Amino acid sequence: MSETGSSSILLREDRDGVATLTLNRPGARNALSRALLEALREAFAALSEDENVRAVVLAAVGPAFCAGHDLKEMTGYRAESDRGAEAFEDLFALCSGVMMAIPALPQPVIAAVEGVATAAGCQLVASCDLAVAGAEARFATPGVQIGLFCSTPMVALSRNLSRKAAMRMLLTADMADAEEARRLGLVNDVVEAGGALAAAQALAGAIAARSPYAVGVGKRAFYEQLEMPLAEAYAHAGRVMTENMLARAAEEGIGAFLGRKAR
Amino acid sequence: MSETGSSSILLREDRDGVATLTLNRPGARNALSRALLEALREAFAALSEDENVRAVVLAAVGPAFCAGHDLKEMTGYRAESDRGAEAFEDLFALCSGVMMAIPALPQPVIAAVEGVATAAGCQLVASCDLAVAGAEARFATPGVQIGLFCSTPMVALSRNLSRKAAMRMLLTADMADAEEARRLGLVNDVVEAGGALAAAQALAGAIAARSPYAVGVGKRAFYEQLEMPLAEAYAHAGRVMTENMLARAAEEGIGAFLGRKAR
Amino acid sequence: MSETGSSSILLREDRDGVATLTLNRPGARNALSRALLEALREAFAALSEDENVRAVVLAAVGPAFCAGHDLKEMTGYRAESDRGAEAFEDLFALCSGVMMAIPALPQPVIAAVEGVATAAGCQLVASCDLAVAGAEARFATPGVQIGLFCSTPMVALSRNLSRKAAMRMLLTADMADAEEARRLGLVNDVVEAGGALAAAQALAGAIAARSPYAVGVGKRAFYEQLEMPLAEAYAHAGRVMTENMLARAAEEGIGAFLGRKAR
Repeated sequence: MSETGSSSILLREDRDGVATLTLNRPGARNALSRALLEALREAFAALSEDENVRAVVLAAVGPAFCAGHDLKEMTGYRAESDRGAEAFEDLFALCSGVMMAIPALPQPVIAAVEGVATAAGCQLVASCDLAVAGAEARFATPGVQIGLFCSTPMVALSRNLSRKAAMRMLLTADMADAEEARRLGLVNDVVEAGGALAAAQALAGAIAARSPYAVGVGKRAFYEQLEMPLAEAYAHAGRVMTENMLARAAEEGIGAFLGRKAR
Repeated sequence: MSETGSSSILLREDRDGVATLTLNRPGARNALSRALLEALREAFAALSEDENVRAVVLAAVGPAFCAGHDLKEMTGYRAESDRGAEAFEDLFALCSGVMMAIPALPQPVIAAVEGVATAAGCQLVASCDLAVAGAEARFATPGVQIGLFCSTPMVALSRNLSRKAAMRMLLTADMADAEEARRLGLVNDVVEAGGALAAAQALAGAIAARSPYAVGVGKRAFYEQLEMPLAEAYAHAGRVMTENMLARAAEEGIGAFLGRKAR
Repeated sequence: MSETGSSSILLREDRDGVATLTLNRPGARNALSRALLEALREAFAALSEDENVRAVVLAAVGPAFCAGHDLKEMTGYRAESDRGAEAFEDLFALCSGVMMAIPALPQPVIAAVEGVATAAGCQLVASCDLAVAGAEARFATPGVQIGLFCSTPMVALSRNLSRKAAMRMLLTADMADAEEARRLGLVNDVVEAGGALAAAQALAGAIAARSPYAVGVGKRAFYEQLEMPLAEAYAHAGRVMTENMLARAAEEGIGAFLGRKAR
């Protein structure tokens, strides 16, 4: 997949095995219009087949990371004969598909958050494997303020935060600052304001230096085993580990490690 | 449901869409006697049908929030021909029903904790959607001290805390102070001693100002989706979100929001 | 089970109802060779039948707590006609069995960690019911560095830490120091360097003073109910609680408690 032009709503730039996807609708606070969701879906589909990419950073242009759904566009659907029912259903299915494409991607995805990430924008951060936030980043699920509870965002949110912390964000619409988001489990690291992209790319670069095979099977097994009872999770992970041992990556990696120790 | 008299073991006072339920057995450290559990069951049943109530605060009279089951009353059951087996089973079923009634209630329930909350009293806090603690509140599951492991309390506790943190409380009976309880995920906020009720009511008041429809569907979907695998959770939340979009609450709320932005 | 000699790879010493198991391969950084895993399996099997033991501490000799699998031994399996496939599969099944034996044991198991606990060594800590770390203990799941993702360790790790915190450790191989491990939920307490064993034994001693019946049924029910939906978890815990009420431990414990109160 070639880089998209800077006029595109979703930019992609690849360097040293790291692809950086950048939401580029700053005038609309990077709201997830249907077009932007489709661009994300296509970008993730292309990345999933791209052996040159070993880690992905998800960033944004402008003062807001992502304001969630495009409410203006959605309101337009109300003119349809079913008052938008089918269009809303399609849109939420598209959006959920994009969110689920992140854990399904073989490469780890790291959010680089500056500014506010709200509603489905907050969900996007929660859906990433890792997240780095600038010190002034803020997070909220404020749908309840406009009568639209953040029900799809909470699927991802409640799989990152403890119950009461997730409920607090959902019921009150209060903003969590970067440090609070770190304390609650929504982001891994807080760096100085403006430094999230560089920090996320450094983290991605470190991951890109590893065996993509090992990273890919490990990431997939992580999410698979999370939804299994303990014994089943171990049976599954044991099979993955055996296959991994037989792969060249482990044979070479372990050989080199033992060689270093022996010297 | 009218307010119950101040001599009742469970008080209820409604103001501005917020119902405050108050455990009123201070002489027995608000132990959950059968009568108090039945009063809670009835209060929650009444609240679930009460469209005037949009949020609930659960508080207590006296120096202890709640000391758990009424051991003296339970010991009385041992005189029965089956040594109390049936009575104990009934009591735990009643108690579990009360605990499960809290997440099942359409309105959010906020615990306001001063003093100690132990055993089933700690479970009551864990079962609430949100919790505020005064700085001198303390929490424990000390059943192991008297040979009665806090097995039913742990159902709620282990859905709020990480495994080792929950195990620690259950195995050692150690008290967690308010700050520790916040760090572990058992309460959302710690306020000055004596300030929990006012803080919980303020939080409830903020929630009561939102669309009760959106809050209700969102709260229900929260607990439903938590127990589903990811793809099923998204399918469910997507249906909830579509219905929510078609409801008047969202239509008006989004309309007003876009109107404010356009001005 | 008698104490094993100090030349054994796994030591056991019992005192006042507390059994301390000590990994004793300091020259190999206590790597989990097949022999050491088999010794652990047998030790846990013996403990599960030993009514004199009420709590278990898991410690280690030397500067490292446990470095994970014995890679040198595993590499030897590659000479086999199937390139080691069957041997690897057997080894991971043995290791997973040992890890699952910890939550399955009736007695609580407390890790006492000094030095580094990596890969399956980190998994061992995560698998314990409780963990105490010396201030200089460190934790990592660094398999990705040698092309072998820590897929079986992550089963235990991801049941202790939040998703992004677990993913961070698995994808980056970064060391978490003792305080970070505590913040993330991997250990309960951090004590001064060198003090983990004494602190774990004190904790074990406190637990050993409780009713072993209550501790045993409670621990078992803890892990069982964690994997159940809420209503089922309550039904199960209610049955456990009723049986516990009818046991002598609770009858005597509650009787003594009410007696003290009445005086």
